[in-house]
Amino acid sequence: MKVDVMAMAQRARRAARPLSMADEDSKNRALLAMADLLVQNTTQLQQENALDLQAATAKGLSPAMIDRLRLDAGRIAAMAEGLRQVAALPDPVGEITNLKPRPNGMRVGRMRMPLGVVGVIYESRPNVTADAAALCVKSGNAVILRGGSEAYHSNRAIAACLSQGLLATGLPVDAVQYIDTTDRSAVGDLLRCDKWVDVIIPRGGKDLIACVMADSHIPVIKHLDGICHTYVDRYADLEMALALTLNGKMQRTGVCNTTETLLVHQAVAAAFLPKACQQLAAAGCELRVCPRTRALVPAEIPMVEATPEDWDTEYLAAILSIRVVDSLEEAIDHIEAHSSRHTETIVTQDYARALRFLREVDSASVMVNASTRFSDGFEFGLGAEMGISTDKLHVRGPVGLEGLTIQKYIVLGDGQLRQ
Amino acid sequence: MKVDVMAMAQRARRAARPLSMADEDSKNRALLAMADLLVQNTTQLQQENALDLQAATAKGLSPAMIDRLRLDAGRIAAMAEGLRQVAALPDPVGEITNLKPRPNGMRVGRMRMPLGVVGVIYESRPNVTADAAALCVKSGNAVILRGGSEAYHSNRAIAACLSQGLLATGLPVDAVQYIDTTDRSAVGDLLRCDKWVDVIIPRGGKDLIACVMADSHIPVIKHLDGICHTYVDRYADLEMALALTLNGKMQRTGVCNTTETLLVHQAVAAAFLPKACQQLAAAGCELRVCPRTRALVPAEIPMVEATPEDWDTEYLAAILSIRVVDSLEEAIDHIEAHSSRHTETIVTQDYARALRFLREVDSASVMVNASTRFSDGFEFGLGAEMGISTDKLHVRGPVGLEGLTIQKYIVLGDGQLRQ
Repeated sequence: MKVDVMAMAQRARRAARPLSMADEDSKNRALLAMADLLVQNTTQLQQENALDLQAATAKGLSPAMIDRLRLDAGRIAAMAEGLRQVAALPDPVGEITNLKPRPNGMRVGRMRMPLGVVGVIYESRPNVTADAAALCVKSGNAVILRGGSEAYHSNRAIAACLSQGLLATGLPVDAVQYIDTTDRSAVGDLLRCDKWVDVIIPRGGKDLIACVMADSHIPVIKHLDGICHTYVDRYADLEMALALTLNGKMQRTGVCNTTETLLVHQAVAAAFLPKACQQLAAAGCELRVCPRTRALVPAEIPMVEATPEDWDTEYLAAILSIRVVDSLEEAIDHIEAHSSRHTETIVTQDYARALRFLREVDSASVMVNASTRFSDGFEFGLGAEMGISTDKLHVRGPVGLEGLTIQKYIVLGDGQLRQ
Repeated sequence: MKVDVMAMAQRARRAARPLSMADEDSKNRALLAMADLLVQNTTQLQQENALDLQAATAKGLSPAMIDRLRLDAGRIAAMAEGLRQVAALPDPVGEITNLKPRPNGMRVGRMRMPLGVVGVIYESRPNVTADAAALCVKSGNAVILRGGSEAYHSNRAIAACLSQGLLATGLPVDAVQYIDTTDRSAVGDLLRCDKWVDVIIPRGGKDLIACVMADSHIPVIKHLDGICHTYVDRYADLEMALALTLNGKMQRTGVCNTTETLLVHQAVAAAFLPKACQQLAAAGCELRVCPRTRALVPAEIPMVEATPEDWDTEYLAAILSIRVVDSLEEAIDHIEAHSSRHTETIVTQDYARALRFLREVDSASVMVNASTRFSDGFEFGLGAEMGISTDKLHVRGPVGLEGLTIQKYIVLGDGQLRQ
């Protein structure tokens, strides 16, 4: 079915203004009503979800994909709880900061405001429908949601609950709109609505994001890859380094903040690598290594020689590339050349080297003595996240409520004239 | 002459990293050396400028255009003083804010960093060469400058002084590069360097900016128009309103923060408009008005009826459109429909209406009881500006040093693992 996405975008633009002025209580009431509606409609949501699961099975999707798609009562309750958590976060809109007098007595400051209309394009997991809507509503932004076709029935059933929540609390119902079609041309239509949509946030695999970037006439907040590095410095606590490496690589392997490359200072390579490689291999991790690593590690531990492509690869799997470097500088150079600018960590007890790494590494999140797996809006204390940005403009790192706002200037005068 | 802009962009990218790490003293020394070099080379700068002035005269450019192009000893000294003022501003790079402990003891904060490589495309006034370079160097960004062909000789002579200043202080000389050609294809080449250039800032007329927006593969920070509004509320101090209207419109007419439309609440229209129109007309301002305004103002004061296009026109001249509105809401609706989102001001003594205007008007700068002419980086206390943004992302309003930076996340741990 053909949906008029342009008309949706125009309605979203009209809804954006009253939503931007809504007080925090109204927005919270809407989010709590949405949460209640999701729980009350558990049976119906599961019926709709069953249609998606049947289609997925018929299409032969992998068991992992089908699992991601599944909505059981527990997942529906968790989705509702996510809405309640966003309701509990402080409202960033209207916050005035830095209000300072000028020499002529006029005071100049900044007020935080919503961006306006946000387009969210995502894949597979239906809970994104509720999560993204919650963050947009709380930050005063109208949102247009476009989910993956494999979750079509689930997403529209969730979106119906969200709309009812808006209606019940008097917020404009067009503040949350779901593009109700599996027609692929709707995505292209949305990306051409630059007159009404302020920003596009794609969430999903690299192919989806690359497509959105190529076709969008609207600014895009995104990250493509997560090629994250753990660097074990010559002054590292090697027990800590071992734990951080194992956690960074193996705590969860299919996500963007997983360590994909381990860099080890040559001064500690002989002391660190044999044990580290043994434990990684024992945990089921495939190792792709530089010749110096191979030479240091007992032959019975299986490893293959890394190819040049390995240093630029996001495995999203239990695979780790390992390289011995001669110096902190070489580690930073390697990261500069190969990182996707997502997250890097140094393991060191040396103060100056920790500060240099923090300052010189140009990534969205730069860490000292912490697992790359912490690079996440919840873990950073943002409460929730819309995704992670590796862009240089607007927002870098996890995107929470603040990333969905912008500061305008405000001036409080009492008749000042320009000389 | 064909210039290899891609090679320049690659050199800028390489220079960006050492520049991003340079301490404040080094950057300030470079800016002060540049200032001294400009003053020392006053004679040579004037000789080069004379070539541009001759060409401009031969081409028949207007006296106003030729005046903007002229570099005399006073303007060269002022340009040098501008560099010294930027040196005196605090360095935003490396600033750490909001460093807060998480429940697991890990501290999460943000560190301000340069964007990387900035491309600046500008017209006519040669002092932009020095101003833009100063702001970029101080904020740790490499810059590629592309000036208008009419200032070609002046710009390259200024750029040579800037390069010498970098050399003299040991900063990478590729941190400031001037595209040394009048070949127009160089602009298109620069706009395709998205692999190495992080942001483009166009400064100049609407045509230039529209062209850059249409062709750029790189994010652009800009404003197109300045259709600014002064709204005289029913609770305005009418003497103040008169002074603010005259200042907003007539203090300088050819710039983007000039008031182009006056909105007057119907309750004070009869008391305010006759005197205001009389004084505006006496000051040489053409008036294009709604029928209600015409009916209120004595027939001897010349005014024409506004056409629908007037409400969407940036006059950049001594012309003002005037409309009587029934309410604050109608004023805000008019602004929502016709503003270019640059700057609007309300004149009122009413607390609640002032706050509503501040909150509800979606423009880069929103004022109470102050002249729209204050919307400017210097006047706002930023010290200097690269331009003004009416965008919704990254920066809104005058763009100073902070607008040329972005915050990355930093994490200080002591071995925390993700559970």
